[in-house]
Amino acid sequence: MSSAAPVVWARTVAEVQRTLAAASRSGTPVVTRGAGTGLVGGADAGPGTIVLDLSRMNRVLGIDPVDGVARVEPGVVTAALDRAAAAHGLMYAPDPGSVTTCTIGGNVATNAGGLRGAKYGVTRDSLLALDVVLADGTLLHAGHDTVKGVVGLDLVGLIAGSEGTLGVVVGATVRLLPRPLRTATAVAYFATAVEAAAASAALATAGVRPAVLEFLDGKTLRAIDGLRGTGHADRGDALLLVQTDGFGAEEELEVAAAVLARSAQEVTTATDPAAAAELFAARRDALPAIEAKGPVLIEDIAVPRSRLAEAVAGVAAIAAATGADVYVFAHAGDGNLHPIIRSGPGDATRAAEEIFALALKLGGTVSAEHGVGLVKRPWLERELGPGALDLQRRIKRLFDPAGILNPGKAI
Amino acid sequence: MSSAAPVVWARTVAEVQRTLAAASRSGTPVVTRGAGTGLVGGADAGPGTIVLDLSRMNRVLGIDPVDGVARVEPGVVTAALDRAAAAHGLMYAPDPGSVTTCTIGGNVATNAGGLRGAKYGVTRDSLLALDVVLADGTLLHAGHDTVKGVVGLDLVGLIAGSEGTLGVVVGATVRLLPRPLRTATAVAYFATAVEAAAASAALATAGVRPAVLEFLDGKTLRAIDGLRGTGHADRGDALLLVQTDGFGAEEELEVAAAVLARSAQEVTTATDPAAAAELFAARRDALPAIEAKGPVLIEDIAVPRSRLAEAVAGVAAIAAATGADVYVFAHAGDGNLHPIIRSGPGDATRAAEEIFALALKLGGTVSAEHGVGLVKRPWLERELGPGALDLQRRIKRLFDPAGILNPGKAI
Repeated sequence: MSSAAPVVWARTVAEVQRTLAAASRSGTPVVTRGAGTGLVGGADAGPGTIVLDLSRMNRVLGIDPVDGVARVEPGVVTAALDRAAAAHGLMYAPDPGSVTTCTIGGNVATNAGGLRGAKYGVTRDSLLALDVVLADGTLLHAGHDTVKGVVGLDLVGLIAGSEGTLGVVVGATVRLLPRPLRTATAVAYFATAVEAAAASAALATAGVRPAVLEFLDGKTLRAIDGLRGTGHADRGDALLLVQTDGFGAEEELEVAAAVLARSAQEVTTATDPAAAAELFAARRDALPAIEAKGPVLIEDIAVPRSRLAEAVAGVAAIAAATGADVYVFAHAGDGNLHPIIRSGPGDATRAAEEIFALALKLGGTVSAEHGVGLVKRPWLERELGPGALDLQRRIKRLFDPAGILNPGKAI
Repeated sequence: MSSAAPVVWARTVAEVQRTLAAASRSGTPVVTRGAGTGLVGGADAGPGTIVLDLSRMNRVLGIDPVDGVARVEPGVVTAALDRAAAAHGLMYAPDPGSVTTCTIGGNVATNAGGLRGAKYGVTRDSLLALDVVLADGTLLHAGHDTVKGVVGLDLVGLIAGSEGTLGVVVGATVRLLPRPLRTATAVAYFATAVEAAAASAALATAGVRPAVLEFLDGKTLRAIDGLRGTGHADRGDALLLVQTDGFGAEEELEVAAAVLARSAQEVTTATDPAAAAELFAARRDALPAIEAKGPVLIEDIAVPRSRLAEAVAGVAAIAAATGADVYVFAHAGDGNLHPIIRSGPGDATRAAEEIFALALKLGGTVSAEHGVGLVKRPWLERELGPGALDLQRRIKRLFDPAGILNPGKAI
């Protein structure tokens, strides 16, 4: 057997079925792959493995504006689906950081989130039905083509986030929402990261529901200034970015901005798209600016929103203790922190482990939206407990008795 | 063994665990019960069955306004949870018709919907985590206490809607949302039911996202007039009720009302709560007015929203052909029709069967939000197909090898 994994570039459901049926007969592991943008090694393939690449199954099969649904193949790029929806005045809400390159199939596999998750939830919240090829090659239609439906167990939710371990998603019926006619955006600078985290908690009880609520720490601001020549760090040591949308976007933003102004050093708002894009620039530049310094580990913990300030302070303390170079930005509305750890300075591995432990100590999770893949498997039992993990592994065996689907990943 | 089912009124998780452990040992079926408001016989208990009544486990254990979550026991009445949330400026969104009497545990069991489902989804969409006693008496914590979390398979979604067949829900962590500061409400009367259904479809592409979008047919309006002495039927042969909420509620309603006015005979709007309550009165009186005529079957189909007019016309044709007395109101925003069939006139049973077949023919489901229970089991395989049903039954056996949990129901 060659040590390079053979690749099947499937173009049809039947090809996926044949691939899995043959793999089942021969007991060959299959690793399904979309755009390969995953961050946890979920699509890594070793020797003796078939790579099933679905990136060529990339058609939007149909959009029904009245139903508010789209039917898509798994290789459709997420941003392409949103553009297709926009042509009908609609929106595909989930927008992971890799939205311009990642695919719907990968989003389903990891139950991906994104910036708009604060209001619109994660991929699961936009899924109505899935076509799934099971390990033996049979095709399963899971879910309902209607907005509501309670006949049968929820196999769609079970498969979403299962990281290719239960079946291969070959089609999805997703929900589209009216595209908000207006947005309003604010950026606020704070003297400390903890004050910014506290302000984000204050928004939670202010009666507003931002579509976007993002946090950037001072180290991230300095990295952006280094890349772009901007002056963010002169204005504060942490930033919150808030965007409201819908009919009342401007009034809702005024309420949010008043809350921010209580503790911020500076608040800037914008209602026209060009000015809003400028306010978004820092957030968009955050990861590239850090990555410009060298290779990084991108972490993905979540804590209850009320513990965000503790999490931010805890990560800073871990960085100090391990000598690691850690930058933090966060989907603050979801309590979802992305600590970015540079490879090199200090003990990056220990810093990551301690950040995972911190997340669990604060009642959180070691992965909010990137998945478990290979790299977080050691933390599975610690987070889930032995009982829940055992039950999940028995479900996995029921779907995939021969263990050919993405073995050694996720669960 | 007595033919009357013995009842265990559990007050603690430990009591539920002991009950299930003992039932597993003796192979005794257990039927879990909340308030008994179900409409499909899901909590019916025959001879030789233990009824596990959770209505006394009715405490709201805690609300964290910053996290936007509540922890509740299963016997909490849904409206009581919403009232507790309201004290913090928050809302528990799901609002089934029986909201003032039904319990959260029952809502989880059926994945219940409600009027606000058009915007806020069903019970599953508000669930973060569940405490579940498994068939053998062990306690499982499923899900995450954070808004996001992708570690492990989604057991919360699997258990929601499983109608007591996979485990007994003894606790839930639910999501609370900011309570909308404002609402705006419209009622529109149409010359025909099909025109009203078409107007509801037009709203779907108008860029609005109503929290409530309800349809009442002419027979229902005449029943309300009979009960209350109102004059709805003089104003049209079908009614749509629309409510928007949030910061832009009034402007959003203006857009919706303009769409309705294109084909309606009459449109009335209200922004103050008292006037809005008057507009809601017809919807609230719909079922009582029909039930005042005698016993009824309450059906619960859903179709894609674009097929609503066909569904309404199809139900009328079935009523004509079978001689059955059928009233239709609907959560039109979800394509979820509740045909109410009076027992007595014509062939009510055949009318129900034909309505189920119509739902499937239009790409819909035989149950949008009430569940399968006993009464819709004959339709399970026809809707799901043999493959999906077999897989679901194997999952059921994995959770409950002895088959003691609500046997003969749901799947």
